[in-house]
Amino acid sequence: MSVPIGSVRAVSDTAISRQTAQDYVDRLERRDWPGLTGLLTDDVVYEMPQTRERIRGREAFLRFNIDYPGDWHLRVRRLVADGRLAALWLDVRVGDEQQDACVWLELSEHGLINRIVDYWPEPYEPPQGREHLVERW
Amino acid sequence: MSVPIGSVRAVSDTAISRQTAQDYVDRLERRDWPGLTGLLTDDVVYEMPQTRERIRGREAFLRFNIDYPGDWHLRVRRLVADGRLAALWLDVRVGDEQQDACVWLELSEHGLINRIVDYWPEPYEPPQGREHLVERW
Repeated sequence: MSVPIGSVRAVSDTAISRQTAQDYVDRLERRDWPGLTGLLTDDVVYEMPQTRERIRGREAFLRFNIDYPGDWHLRVRRLVADGRLAALWLDVRVGDEQQDACVWLELSEHGLINRIVDYWPEPYEPPQGREHLVERW
Repeated sequence: MSVPIGSVRAVSDTAISRQTAQDYVDRLERRDWPGLTGLLTDDVVYEMPQTRERIRGREAFLRFNIDYPGDWHLRVRRLVADGRLAALWLDVRVGDEQQDACVWLELSEHGLINRIVDYWPEPYEPPQGREHLVERW
């Protein structure tokens, strides 16, 4: 047996985190509120550092999502999972508008999401002086 | 041997990606340009989706960083690595100003960084109507 126990457990935690992160997006996208509830700890904390907003608890977080305005749709662009952590790079659409999001998840020892941190980066104009190094798309 | 070869290799790729992502930040922070060069493929691509800017090649990317204005400092808040992917959540300081960044890395089969995608989310005012669900900090 050349693989230490710790590595085997880490692979298993990672597999759970990867599946849970994918399920988190899928259930939000489907508005599967009971399914989403099943992924979250009772006292999950949701943070948006750009607005310095924090929501505490599963019930308030569900309500926030149920009430969120617009016909929003989520697609995973990238999912990186490691132990009890996961990072999601999302393609978010509301009607004709598109925005990317960066989401950081922490899972509890029982594989439930207990912390979510969302970033919603907005487009902006690049500063002058680096045109010789960059191309635009 | 109960662990399939694939899992063992995945752990190893992940370990390399984790170390490379940490080194990437450390060498930028130290302005260790030869050290940074050693982490990158010749044709590394750097993208900033918010400005739709793209920089192609190690030389141009090094120049971009060497010329970047301000006494900037980087600290890893979170690092998530999985196979040849890594995600970095950074605390960036320039003088008294602080901003978070989300960075997505892809590594080549030789363990060098061949794609970097940076997001620089800015603070904004939260929309009205959810004050009953959130606290501010």
